[in-house]
Amino acid sequence: MSSPYELKWGFLACGGIAETFAKDLLIPPSTRDVTTIKHTIVGAATSNSLSRAASFLKNINAPEEAQPYATYHDLVTSPSPTIIYISSPHSHHYQHIRLCLEAGKHVLCEKAFTANAAQCSALIALAREKGLFLMEAQWTRYFPLTEWLRKAALPRIGRISRVNADLSIGKMDFDATHRMLNPDLAGGGLLDLGVYSLSWVFLGLYKGARPAVAGSAVEKHPTTGVDVMTSILLDFGEGRHAFATCGMRTSSDPDGKGSAGPCVTFQGERGDVLLFSPTSRPTRARVVLTDGTVEEKEFRPPGPGEGSGWYNGFGGEVNPEGEGHGMFYEADECAFAIRDGRLEGRGMGLAETLDLLRVCDEVREKHGVRFPERVETLEYPLKE
Amino acid sequence: MSSPYELKWGFLACGGIAETFAKDLLIPPSTRDVTTIKHTIVGAATSNSLSRAASFLKNINAPEEAQPYATYHDLVTSPSPTIIYISSPHSHHYQHIRLCLEAGKHVLCEKAFTANAAQCSALIALAREKGLFLMEAQWTRYFPLTEWLRKAALPRIGRISRVNADLSIGKMDFDATHRMLNPDLAGGGLLDLGVYSLSWVFLGLYKGARPAVAGSAVEKHPTTGVDVMTSILLDFGEGRHAFATCGMRTSSDPDGKGSAGPCVTFQGERGDVLLFSPTSRPTRARVVLTDGTVEEKEFRPPGPGEGSGWYNGFGGEVNPEGEGHGMFYEADECAFAIRDGRLEGRGMGLAETLDLLRVCDEVREKHGVRFPERVETLEYPLKE
Repeated sequence: MSSPYELKWGFLACGGIAETFAKDLLIPPSTRDVTTIKHTIVGAATSNSLSRAASFLKNINAPEEAQPYATYHDLVTSPSPTIIYISSPHSHHYQHIRLCLEAGKHVLCEKAFTANAAQCSALIALAREKGLFLMEAQWTRYFPLTEWLRKAALPRIGRISRVNADLSIGKMDFDATHRMLNPDLAGGGLLDLGVYSLSWVFLGLYKGARPAVAGSAVEKHPTTGVDVMTSILLDFGEGRHAFATCGMRTSSDPDGKGSAGPCVTFQGERGDVLLFSPTSRPTRARVVLTDGTVEEKEFRPPGPGEGSGWYNGFGGEVNPEGEGHGMFYEADECAFAIRDGRLEGRGMGLAETLDLLRVCDEVREKHGVRFPERVETLEYPLKE
Repeated sequence: MSSPYELKWGFLACGGIAETFAKDLLIPPSTRDVTTIKHTIVGAATSNSLSRAASFLKNINAPEEAQPYATYHDLVTSPSPTIIYISSPHSHHYQHIRLCLEAGKHVLCEKAFTANAAQCSALIALAREKGLFLMEAQWTRYFPLTEWLRKAALPRIGRISRVNADLSIGKMDFDATHRMLNPDLAGGGLLDLGVYSLSWVFLGLYKGARPAVAGSAVEKHPTTGVDVMTSILLDFGEGRHAFATCGMRTSSDPDGKGSAGPCVTFQGERGDVLLFSPTSRPTRARVVLTDGTVEEKEFRPPGPGEGSGWYNGFGGEVNPEGEGHGMFYEADECAFAIRDGRLEGRGMGLAETLDLLRVCDEVREKHGVRFPERVETLEYPLKE
């Protein structure tokens, strides 16, 4: 047997989500029955602090060889990493993805992929020109739950006519400078939360053609002007409608136990498939068919297991002992793709990422939600 | 104690819904703790058959004194009835309501109230001019469940920011001449099913100002052109959004047991209130608060009770033995109003009925769903 393909990761930005991703990367792929690839963390950089990069690597128990870098530029121009995981604020994704691509690195970049579709389009062209792998970190698209949805569950309900998806967090009391509310960081519900709702809607109905935005409603923050609650009605044509919603006022899961019902619903001619909160990381699903069938399904991300003393999680959430967060699935896809010479992810290609951003653009334009020119621009690099 | 006020009902049209309403009327109001009014059925007419009117009265066990009439005109010009219950196809409501009002009768008319808002507006003016009571049979607005919603449940969730309501029946195989699909009968999902979804949405968010239709999507029937699936996004302003949906492709309740979640959701700052299918007659509700509270609530319509051998129900549905259908609540409101000299129902006034129809108009216009001129016209009476 040949040795597994090793994908060498560099981290551009070292915040909470980077920590969760890094911890997931360090779980042996064999725990999820993956034996032909492996992940190695070889470096990390923050925007301006070598010591914070070093602390990050220490904190996640990165291997000895992993290097902290003083700047993003140093990281991406180092020969060590093969791929860069970008988790800076989405206001900066265009600049950072370009930085990586220009340096010849493959890229996995967090959602929202860019601030607008024009930036995404330019990056797609650049990645193709350079022959580099580029993928939006739409991690839910690589969950076993999602594989089950595509291959087993959704086919059972027949033609899908409606998809409703909501990610609302029931929390608004952020400081105006917080990334959720700050236009300088491309803040607002749509690009932070709405991209999840849109992703589920697209999973159910997108067949390569951009849906029409049949309507949208947006409540803007009174001082910062970003969206605090957004509702989008999409028409995918031929009697296929979808609602993608997000916001900070209401909650997709008020009691945290799913008592208020599903956060995502796929409705077909023979029944529904439901996903339960969190929309950003569902582990529980239900199939309800018109023949009376009701089936519950649970997916727990694997990891070192109980008794391992190992924990992961994002934000305030900590998963049960020994349970991975589930980000390794998208990481595995990066490894498979780069090993095999593919330039896009199989769970969500760049055309879909682009069409999703076009929906966001259209909604923002309609309601005058615009970020500063430095965030929206195609200019690269930015003048200081 | 004075004797109860007696409201004398005439039936204009004698179909399935008239039968259910009539049976409900004949249940003693005391079964629902109502003692100050009573209902009497004094007459009925079909469009053209004295014998069918007679059969109807016999079938519902109407009192001996109840008279069949050969025509609607004969019914409404008879001195016997005080109020006419209209349950003809909604294509004909404008003509039939005018017929009643011109004859000096109070009116309770089924949903959709009229084919369009202009007709509704004309009828409101006429009813006011004549000093007559006029009410849309939005029966859900008079349920004890709805009283509980307004007074007890919704106040607990605080400011309401979102309401979603769906009434979809998962059945499309109607004949093209069936009222669901026939434009001559103002067919289609919107006016038959969507008015329920809109009514719940309005219950949660309407404060007297017409909401903006932020968008809509409609799938039209390939041959008859009526809507078979409709999705409406409403913006009530100040961060209050709603989705009202209806259709024949999907189902609000695929397994008939509510396993696919609620059909109506009110979302507030402190949690949600959910109603379970059927949207047209919910008996089950749930409150889910952000403090972890989860409360189930059930409302069974009263009636003669178990062991009575008495049944009621609409369409294919039969309620459990002894259980009323719940239409008597709206009938009681008619009696209270007319007794007290009120000209509108308290659960949903005519301004709200009109604004709801304006939403329907706007959606139909946007998607070119138009009924024949005879259905849309303000002309009265129609030339043969």
